[in-house]
Amino acid sequence: MPDAEAPAGPVLDLLLETPLVKDRSGASLQRQLHQRIRGAILDGRFPSGCRLPGSRALATALGISRNSVTAVYDLLGAEGYITLSRQGTRVSALERPASRPRAARQAASPPVARRAARIRDSTLNAADNLPLRPGVPALARFPLSAWKHCLDRAVRQAGPSGLWYGDPLGEPALRAAIMRHLAVARGVRCEPEQIVITEGAQEALTLCVRLVTNPGDTAWIEDPGYRGAKTAMLGGDLDVIPMRVDDSGLSVPERAWTTQTPRLVYTSPSHQYPTGAVLTAARRLDLIDRAQRHGAWIIEDDYDSEYRHAGELVGAMQGLVPDAPVLYGGTFSKTLFPSLRLGFLVLPDALAAKAAPWLRETLRGGHRYEQLALAQFIESGQFSRHLGRMRRLYKRRQDALRAALTQHLDVPHVVAGGDSGMHLTVRLPDDCLDTRIAEAARAFEMAPMPLSRFALRPLPEDNGLVLGYGNTSESLFVPLVQRLAKLIAADRQEGKG
Amino acid sequence: MPDAEAPAGPVLDLLLETPLVKDRSGASLQRQLHQRIRGAILDGRFPSGCRLPGSRALATALGISRNSVTAVYDLLGAEGYITLSRQGTRVSALERPASRPRAARQAASPPVARRAARIRDSTLNAADNLPLRPGVPALARFPLSAWKHCLDRAVRQAGPSGLWYGDPLGEPALRAAIMRHLAVARGVRCEPEQIVITEGAQEALTLCVRLVTNPGDTAWIEDPGYRGAKTAMLGGDLDVIPMRVDDSGLSVPERAWTTQTPRLVYTSPSHQYPTGAVLTAARRLDLIDRAQRHGAWIIEDDYDSEYRHAGELVGAMQGLVPDAPVLYGGTFSKTLFPSLRLGFLVLPDALAAKAAPWLRETLRGGHRYEQLALAQFIESGQFSRHLGRMRRLYKRRQDALRAALTQHLDVPHVVAGGDSGMHLTVRLPDDCLDTRIAEAARAFEMAPMPLSRFALRPLPEDNGLVLGYGNTSESLFVPLVQRLAKLIAADRQEGKG
Repeated sequence: MPDAEAPAGPVLDLLLETPLVKDRSGASLQRQLHQRIRGAILDGRFPSGCRLPGSRALATALGISRNSVTAVYDLLGAEGYITLSRQGTRVSALERPASRPRAARQAASPPVARRAARIRDSTLNAADNLPLRPGVPALARFPLSAWKHCLDRAVRQAGPSGLWYGDPLGEPALRAAIMRHLAVARGVRCEPEQIVITEGAQEALTLCVRLVTNPGDTAWIEDPGYRGAKTAMLGGDLDVIPMRVDDSGLSVPERAWTTQTPRLVYTSPSHQYPTGAVLTAARRLDLIDRAQRHGAWIIEDDYDSEYRHAGELVGAMQGLVPDAPVLYGGTFSKTLFPSLRLGFLVLPDALAAKAAPWLRETLRGGHRYEQLALAQFIESGQFSRHLGRMRRLYKRRQDALRAALTQHLDVPHVVAGGDSGMHLTVRLPDDCLDTRIAEAARAFEMAPMPLSRFALRPLPEDNGLVLGYGNTSESLFVPLVQRLAKLIAADRQEGKG
Repeated sequence: MPDAEAPAGPVLDLLLETPLVKDRSGASLQRQLHQRIRGAILDGRFPSGCRLPGSRALATALGISRNSVTAVYDLLGAEGYITLSRQGTRVSALERPASRPRAARQAASPPVARRAARIRDSTLNAADNLPLRPGVPALARFPLSAWKHCLDRAVRQAGPSGLWYGDPLGEPALRAAIMRHLAVARGVRCEPEQIVITEGAQEALTLCVRLVTNPGDTAWIEDPGYRGAKTAMLGGDLDVIPMRVDDSGLSVPERAWTTQTPRLVYTSPSHQYPTGAVLTAARRLDLIDRAQRHGAWIIEDDYDSEYRHAGELVGAMQGLVPDAPVLYGGTFSKTLFPSLRLGFLVLPDALAAKAAPWLRETLRGGHRYEQLALAQFIESGQFSRHLGRMRRLYKRRQDALRAALTQHLDVPHVVAGGDSGMHLTVRLPDDCLDTRIAEAARAFEMAPMPLSRFALRPLPEDNGLVLGYGNTSESLFVPLVQRLAKLIAADRQEGKG
């Protein structure tokens, strides 16, 4: 250890430069003194070998107890900043990276992951819920007090035992409730052991990717399609191939199965997002059959399926064929509320068995009161009643939006989707630009989304607006559509000018 | 389409085989009929081209309204199962994978991810909180009603607006509260923009891995160390290298920096888990310096740091050196309760800026009422007071456990750790086997963990027990340790016999 003697005088002066802030707590004084000495050591004001004042002298000078100073010295000693010996207290020999020039330090900053660089920022994910924004349920109509009642009851019934982790796959009561609900409402056939509770749909997707793919595998997503699917696939370092969607849903060219054989296929067959197409039975069976032949897994994102407006519900793919390689995902973000962050994944039987060790080691359970409250909300029938009320409300809102479009959107356009869900998709002529219109609309406090932004490789037919009606009152659609019509007309004019 | 005429008679008989279950709802009747017809089509009883009975005939036969039958036929038509025309209603031409033999289907089941196969199941993650289990806080002492009060208030104040997603990085109020708490309690220097709220420590680790590593990169973990770190690294397809821990914490051989250069280093410097070692200041500075030189990131898991029993708190590495490549992670699982699932990550300034687009696209926010309640719990001082109460409680419990070990553990042993936290680590002689003892202990309703199971490459000194005292009453330690002593003696005897 170097022995560069430094007099205690300046050291003491530096320590006394500003007074310690005294409050009731002795611990606070110690903390301040500790930070002050440590700071001076780290920034080089107290160099290696520098002798610190004796504890008695320092205590007197600072007007605090000697015990406090001793405690601080002991801690600094334990941390290795100073060395206490019979010869006095000295600063230890330390290397100080901070003393290198700032530029050198910044240049040395390690790189970030490639996957992080593959995502561009997007205003689409802004945390607003302006009118016409797709994907927003009627938040004001959510029975918050009934939900709160279930939550209170769960806390009362589970008590402090609900504070502990719980089953990594999710509360058994909730998984059983979801199984029963899915069987009746969606034709999904499963046992509670196949269900994993997730943080909403996004974690369900991430979990699928991590469970059945390796980096570099090929994944197919719908184009246009749900952006979160692409994000999840890129997050798993997959090679993401967009597949077009037509009026019958995901459309796969025959040759793609051999030239771009996927390990994973993402689809939203009940109500394709955002086009609203329903995947036909023939395509469903074909997709399952080819996936089985080519060793691929299918993610069935059962988006919006609970809100069927035209006729009976369309059943899930999951229950169509025994042992189909289908991972069925759902969320309560749209049926209850987004910030609840509860979703689920139904794994095929064989996969559930294989994946259990990894899932149990990786997941932690948690949010148990919320999970128990949700189980109760479902089992008591409140969930079904809420779904029924919302389905009727969304139907009325969709009708009002359709009427407003018919009457006030005076450009040639095609309305797609609407058999289920909370949005309509309006295709626009190609002499206007959907991104510009959507951006202009934000100035008028509305958030329609440009259809082209849902596409990885946008075609001319992907020029349009995705209009959410879930969170918008019926009376607003006429003025909103009138305003949109003006914005579109102005945009077309500008394009010609 | 093939035109294999099938008489309506048998079809009708099949549909009438069992009566529909009638309850109050017409929708339910339709659903049953839909599932019955679809099922018969899918399992081949109604083959392609098979003609279905007319809607009037079927309605009469079933004793339901004709509208119901029409609605079901419309849905089946929309799904593509049947074709409706003037010539009547017929089953469409479909390929049926289910008709292939079962063995062929199972053989075709796609593989799971390699990472899922790298994790063995472990009883260590069992969701129990038996006495002596490490990592369990004093759940019964958690002020559940005070917490509930904060939660109720958050729901009241935020109202339905709290149902929407919120900031993907977490509620600004919570991030500001955490920033203030960390500055005072841990010497962490950051702005709220650098903080990301996570699902507990595990998601914080996963996020670090996804943010700064690519598959195949090298990561160092502590050995013995926190199993969750290994799980997170394997989940990111990293090459995981164990580094030994000694009495001064993580110990890195000089040559490792060049022969096994890491992209990521995991450490728990304040109170190494499970050995309890404190990483010395010299090693901290050296680690930061070398990480900067070699382009590595450091995860500082500030485990157990809030419960310092001997002297003043040990400060965090994060604030030691400006621009250090340190990702600082913490959780409220131990300081509040595990099922809350709220933790956080403090990113270095430059990384936070680079990572923001990816984080905003990947994360969803959520659990907003819980986040707002926690912000309130911290800002009102209730969190600090709770920490103070728990620190005193854990000190008493540790003292009681130490006394019981001294008096009743009559085998040669060494007690390590205990300067902070909720557990002690007891090293045992190598003529007994910690895994066998831990397993035997479960029969007596206690869950000490075998030290060797924390090591990737166990050495003889890793034979021991990790004893949690957080959730165990003082009065229980004597009988528990007496029982453990008997189990250890029996195991040593057996080894000799």
